[in-house]
Amino acid sequence: MIDRDRFPVDPWRLVETEFSLDDVGVTETIFAVGNGYLGLRGNHPEGRHALEHGTFINGFHEVFPIRHAEQAFGFAETGQTIVNAPDAKVMRVYVDDEPLAFDVADVREYERVLDFRTGVLTRHVRWMTPSGKDVVIDFDRMVSFEEKHLAVMRVTVTVLNADAPVTVNCQLINRQDGEDVYGGTPKPHAAAGFDPRKTEKFHERVLQPQEYWQDGLRSALAYRVAESGMTLALVADHVIETENEYSARTLVEPDIAKNVFRVQAKAGVPVTVTKLVSYHTSRGVPARELVDRGRRTLDRVLGEGVHTPFERQAAWCEAFWQRSDVQIGGRDDLQQATRWCLFQLAQAAARADSLGVSAKGVSGSGYSGHYFWDTEIYVLPFLAYTTPQWARNALRMRYLMLPAARRRAAMLNEAGALFPWRTINGEEASAYYAAGTAQYHINADVSFALAKYVRATDDTEFLYREGVDIAVETARLWATLGFWRFTENGDPETFHIHGVTGPDEYTTVVNDNLFTNVMARFNLRFAARTVREMAADAPDEYVAMLDRLSLDPAEADAWDAAAEAMHIPYSEALGIHPQDAVFLEREVWDLENTPRSQRPLLLNFHPLVIYRYQVLKQADVVLALFLQGNHFTPIEKLNDFEYYDPLTTGDSTLSAVVQAILAAEVGYQELAEHYFEQSIFVDLGDLHHNASDGVHVASAGGVWTALVSGFGGMRDHYGELSFDPRLPAGWDSLAYTLHWRGTQLKVSLTADELSIAAGEGEDVELSVRGTAYTAVAGQTLTVPLDGQGPVIAGRPTLGMLAESRRDDGSRLSASVPTSTATTAIPTIDDGLSPVETVADVRAPDDHDSGR
Amino acid sequence: MIDRDRFPVDPWRLVETEFSLDDVGVTETIFAVGNGYLGLRGNHPEGRHALEHGTFINGFHEVFPIRHAEQAFGFAETGQTIVNAPDAKVMRVYVDDEPLAFDVADVREYERVLDFRTGVLTRHVRWMTPSGKDVVIDFDRMVSFEEKHLAVMRVTVTVLNADAPVTVNCQLINRQDGEDVYGGTPKPHAAAGFDPRKTEKFHERVLQPQEYWQDGLRSALAYRVAESGMTLALVADHVIETENEYSARTLVEPDIAKNVFRVQAKAGVPVTVTKLVSYHTSRGVPARELVDRGRRTLDRVLGEGVHTPFERQAAWCEAFWQRSDVQIGGRDDLQQATRWCLFQLAQAAARADSLGVSAKGVSGSGYSGHYFWDTEIYVLPFLAYTTPQWARNALRMRYLMLPAARRRAAMLNEAGALFPWRTINGEEASAYYAAGTAQYHINADVSFALAKYVRATDDTEFLYREGVDIAVETARLWATLGFWRFTENGDPETFHIHGVTGPDEYTTVVNDNLFTNVMARFNLRFAARTVREMAADAPDEYVAMLDRLSLDPAEADAWDAAAEAMHIPYSEALGIHPQDAVFLEREVWDLENTPRSQRPLLLNFHPLVIYRYQVLKQADVVLALFLQGNHFTPIEKLNDFEYYDPLTTGDSTLSAVVQAILAAEVGYQELAEHYFEQSIFVDLGDLHHNASDGVHVASAGGVWTALVSGFGGMRDHYGELSFDPRLPAGWDSLAYTLHWRGTQLKVSLTADELSIAAGEGEDVELSVRGTAYTAVAGQTLTVPLDGQGPVIAGRPTLGMLAESRRDDGSRLSASVPTSTATTAIPTIDDGLSPVETVADVRAPDDHDSGR
Repeated sequence: MIDRDRFPVDPWRLVETEFSLDDVGVTETIFAVGNGYLGLRGNHPEGRHALEHGTFINGFHEVFPIRHAEQAFGFAETGQTIVNAPDAKVMRVYVDDEPLAFDVADVREYERVLDFRTGVLTRHVRWMTPSGKDVVIDFDRMVSFEEKHLAVMRVTVTVLNADAPVTVNCQLINRQDGEDVYGGTPKPHAAAGFDPRKTEKFHERVLQPQEYWQDGLRSALAYRVAESGMTLALVADHVIETENEYSARTLVEPDIAKNVFRVQAKAGVPVTVTKLVSYHTSRGVPARELVDRGRRTLDRVLGEGVHTPFERQAAWCEAFWQRSDVQIGGRDDLQQATRWCLFQLAQAAARADSLGVSAKGVSGSGYSGHYFWDTEIYVLPFLAYTTPQWARNALRMRYLMLPAARRRAAMLNEAGALFPWRTINGEEASAYYAAGTAQYHINADVSFALAKYVRATDDTEFLYREGVDIAVETARLWATLGFWRFTENGDPETFHIHGVTGPDEYTTVVNDNLFTNVMARFNLRFAARTVREMAADAPDEYVAMLDRLSLDPAEADAWDAAAEAMHIPYSEALGIHPQDAVFLEREVWDLENTPRSQRPLLLNFHPLVIYRYQVLKQADVVLALFLQGNHFTPIEKLNDFEYYDPLTTGDSTLSAVVQAILAAEVGYQELAEHYFEQSIFVDLGDLHHNASDGVHVASAGGVWTALVSGFGGMRDHYGELSFDPRLPAGWDSLAYTLHWRGTQLKVSLTADELSIAAGEGEDVELSVRGTAYTAVAGQTLTVPLDGQGPVIAGRPTLGMLAESRRDDGSRLSASVPTSTATTAIPTIDDGLSPVETVADVRAPDDHDSGR
Repeated sequence: MIDRDRFPVDPWRLVETEFSLDDVGVTETIFAVGNGYLGLRGNHPEGRHALEHGTFINGFHEVFPIRHAEQAFGFAETGQTIVNAPDAKVMRVYVDDEPLAFDVADVREYERVLDFRTGVLTRHVRWMTPSGKDVVIDFDRMVSFEEKHLAVMRVTVTVLNADAPVTVNCQLINRQDGEDVYGGTPKPHAAAGFDPRKTEKFHERVLQPQEYWQDGLRSALAYRVAESGMTLALVADHVIETENEYSARTLVEPDIAKNVFRVQAKAGVPVTVTKLVSYHTSRGVPARELVDRGRRTLDRVLGEGVHTPFERQAAWCEAFWQRSDVQIGGRDDLQQATRWCLFQLAQAAARADSLGVSAKGVSGSGYSGHYFWDTEIYVLPFLAYTTPQWARNALRMRYLMLPAARRRAAMLNEAGALFPWRTINGEEASAYYAAGTAQYHINADVSFALAKYVRATDDTEFLYREGVDIAVETARLWATLGFWRFTENGDPETFHIHGVTGPDEYTTVVNDNLFTNVMARFNLRFAARTVREMAADAPDEYVAMLDRLSLDPAEADAWDAAAEAMHIPYSEALGIHPQDAVFLEREVWDLENTPRSQRPLLLNFHPLVIYRYQVLKQADVVLALFLQGNHFTPIEKLNDFEYYDPLTTGDSTLSAVVQAILAAEVGYQELAEHYFEQSIFVDLGDLHHNASDGVHVASAGGVWTALVSGFGGMRDHYGELSFDPRLPAGWDSLAYTLHWRGTQLKVSLTADELSIAAGEGEDVELSVRGTAYTAVAGQTLTVPLDGQGPVIAGRPTLGMLAESRRDDGSRLSASVPTSTATTAIPTIDDGLSPVETVADVRAPDDHDSGR
């Protein structure tokens, strides 16, 4: 699926050996650099050919009123979209006043490398100019992980065979509003004849100039976003290093600043221009103040030396890999892709600080820069186990959103807080409630992530001061959203939650969605337990919390009662958990006879049609089997997996990682690998044809979880660490690092044994396949393994429903869904489907249902 | 609810005795005149104070792309909205160059009358001018029922006490695009800061001038609609009759034409100016050609005499009342309102010809001039039984929409045809599928109306030539939309329809909606029977039809099989029919404790909240009990009515008429009257606070049905005419006319007997309370009555669920919905709620859920 001539395998680097205009959008994404706050797409510094000249700053957004074709009470009102910030990436090189233009240039050498150890994007070009000059151009670009606001770009030009005038033209460009005469690239959406950001939603000018100036080699542009009022300043400084003679010229206008260096280059004498750029943004501070901040940033950085940021970047990366690397023995191809994914997580989360991690991180404008549950369910496990501070930062984002979430709950007629399905500023931004607001499970997802973080870190300080507010307010929502059914005697019997949408957006607004119910149950219990633990452990904080939240401790009893009585749909006849109250009443979608041209379903069928069938966009029950795995028996997991796997289209990139984890657990080991490869190459192989929109950050996070929990078999239910490994047959080993309550655990897995080397700190209690062990600090625990769990070949098929495969009574042979008994039951190849199964899938941008 | 001083009771006229600016929107509606093609709102001829200076032509519309805040496959794409046509109503009178301005004028006499027998709106004013002139102004306005394209206005001015200059300024104004300097009224929506018709949807100029000219006293304006391409021409001629001296002046511009008469009026010498206006519209003909048509219309009318249209109008009305009147003995207040409603039906349908009858007829722009199921279910019974040709015309509208309906079915992945939920041009225009496209029942509604028409008329010629296409294509949709469930042996068992919305839009996208299933069952059977009857009765048409529709006669067997096996939800425990598969699983909405300020629910709660509860916007099961009453037993009807009545908000005006009919049938006779009054005064009393948007035509049609079928007890299931009367206790008598297969039946009901006088034609077989009779042509059949059916006092309450009111086993005392057993069950006053129950209800304009 990847052209290995052009992108050769390299365990520590993503390497491109050949320039191409064919997939410029994809390479902009996979070569993007960022730090979670600031992101620069992998545009070439020439500033020409691009799908999107992208510079994205986490949370830097514009707002607009959402206009519904038909309005109704409570529909989301505030549209939000990330704004493409002014572009500082352009550093154009001219030799003899000829520009380097890839579409026509005679390029003799080309290599572009994203190096995961240095944290730098480099590009090496050797160019024979039309007048015969043999020129080497080396370009470096980084966004500092240490200095949140800093990006550094550096170009070195050497004319090898002659003296020649060399020009390096460094620019800052506001492409959002300025007339783009510099790159010749059409603005996004403009071609479609309907640019929602221009023609109706937005102020004529999104970025309103506040300041623009130059001083020596320093340039600055500053703006205010028309409607959101956010401010932005970028300040750039330039350092030229050469033994050639040169002169510098400048130009500044509201939408462009140029620093141009004209060099009389001698043959073989290099010229290096380094451009340091600081981006500062704010929701309230005037742009002028941000300019000052930018100047201070640059002063400080330059004080340490113009190239020092590159050294610090490498050191930062070394530390990152020290605590975060996952090693796959014997599979360099997977190793490379794994590290690329983990590096993306760093690029999306490292400096997100108390902003969120958006669906695309800072690598693209897909999903309008919105935060979804992706952060909590897909990214946070990696953060909590490798760099807990990042996890805490991400959770604080939700804490800061609580006021808006309380208002939203009230608007939806419930108590407590309801987090938005998609947002930047905390307000619900989903314009399609059925696959948006109806996903109440976001509340439980946030609480689940909070609990995971707290258990992995023991950070009760955060829990008791801020986290508890999240736990309580989300539980309160469940308590009023759900309702009791009573026995004929009038005793409360079961607790139900109606009218919600689960993770699988191919059915919406259902009753008793299994995922929602089990996660809400967790949420209720977690809140109740937290309240009680606070009462015992932290009486002062407890009293303050009761007051702050106007909490009656009896509420916790009600939460426990609701959790205890939570209705969990189960079909005795089939021995499986229905996805919702009437899921099994639906017809089964005939996926086998759905032509490839009609995939993904959401782009080819009206929602009313899709919703009518048993067909899944992404794992739903199966995700519950993982997240709440301690509440399901192994046979239940196997039955459920076998039922849902053939119904799951994987039209969302959030699906394959989950299917991989459960496939590994229940024994479909080959299938688990298959799903894993669909996840790990989702962007590098552009498997869903939308990598150009930005990195699939949630999928990247899921890759870590698939490795650690899927193949590594790690679970942490109730804060108890356990391992039940499933090393794929073709892998020599799997090694990863966990941080468990301050102790670093280096876990290493082979076919025969699991070893856990504990670092400094407390001893760690854990279990391996049901046997308890203690990983003593400073020692290595080695547990021999007898195989890698059950092994089932092929993949489940719908046909299995009609078979009596087991005699344990959990599945009755005749009890197939009546709707499919005599209609043709579609079957899927018994062997693994080729990866092209999803290769034709294109998820649309900007749709709740699109991932 | 009506100010009887201002609007006194008069059995044949709607009379206003006092001018008011407080409710100008309502009076514009209730004094509107129209003929189903052309409608003029009741604006005063001065052209000043108005909510909307409205002139509406059935189907004269503009299109625009619907922009969904989030797009998905198959969402409706083509927005359509009726265009306010150029205004010809203005005839301003000046005395001494002083205009008659009601807000400041010294008005000594005022009376405005809509006379149902003459078909003319008249206004009498006696005005003392500031200079002491005593002036009488009489104004007449009519839209001809005979001459489809003709409106006539006439003003007579007499200065009683002095000579004075009198000016009559007659205008044609395009208010849609022209700068409205003439009336000073803000354009609709402009105040809201967001005019969807201007700022984004529409071309800058909707009506593009094609021609404007004057010739003598004749003026013409002609336009083309920017995007739909429709054309319109209005041509006006003016006749002045006076013994005073006068001069005439003219002015014409693209958006205005004036014919001004300056009269040197002698004291006591009247001047009469008559303005004849023809409106012609087309989807294809150039505007110039329409101008010629308009001139020919005026030439012909003037050839017969300028006042002849008034005489013909009265004659037409006499014939209309002869075949359509319903007489209520002893209740002039109800009589007046009834006749107003029936007159509205004539005004909405008479010349609709093969266009539809929109939700507001031609009386306003509410619901954007769209056609809904209102025509088929609420209006068509009146048409079929009083003026069958109008019913046939309305059905032909659906026949003409079949090509678009076939495309829509294919888009929704089904065979056959799917009629749009709302449309003007045949394309689906509902932008909210859950309460729009999901109302698949529209298909059955159309077929039901077709069957009703055919059975009442025996018009098999229409059925076999065009109607059969509707029957077959709608049945085909049900056959693929629904699906079979099978027994364990694999035998087909039940047929189900999932993912649809019934008439009650307070739950949406449900499975096995009872209304939909019973109506689809009817549709399937009707199509199968029609195909078989054609094979026997009309072999030539049959062969042509098979070919035209590519029909395999075996399809009819499949339709019958599906109909036979149609799943009809029924709860043994409650002895009622659940509205859908899981309706009884929902919580019961506590209507009693829902404050008045939160009604109607749809304007105060998010759809997700409403959909989660047992609460109804409008009759759903109860409507099925009426339309398919032969499939339900009396006890089932009683049980269902008692269950659903307390859950029904009546937030839609379509609800009360249906509740009235069933209340009468099952015995809640007082309640039936209560609902009937809510229906009959919906506009005259502005009970839903939106009469200003236009006449509630469906409710008006329902009033006829409530009288004839509700109190009159007429049913026509399977084409068998039957009567089971329920004369309200306070009514002396009820009389109405039916046309049954060419024979006119004059039905008269008193407390003691039912008499049916048959006119010329065939004898009519019928039954009264189960006994068969023959109404012999030319004779009067009299059947004594023993009472008026069962009588139950008060109204049902939710509390009844917990009572064991009957011992027939149909309702078990303990089997209340478990969700409500121990929570407080809201109860409603045992007596009738006052009419204010719905008086605070305001249905929004332009929302599928709004009626």
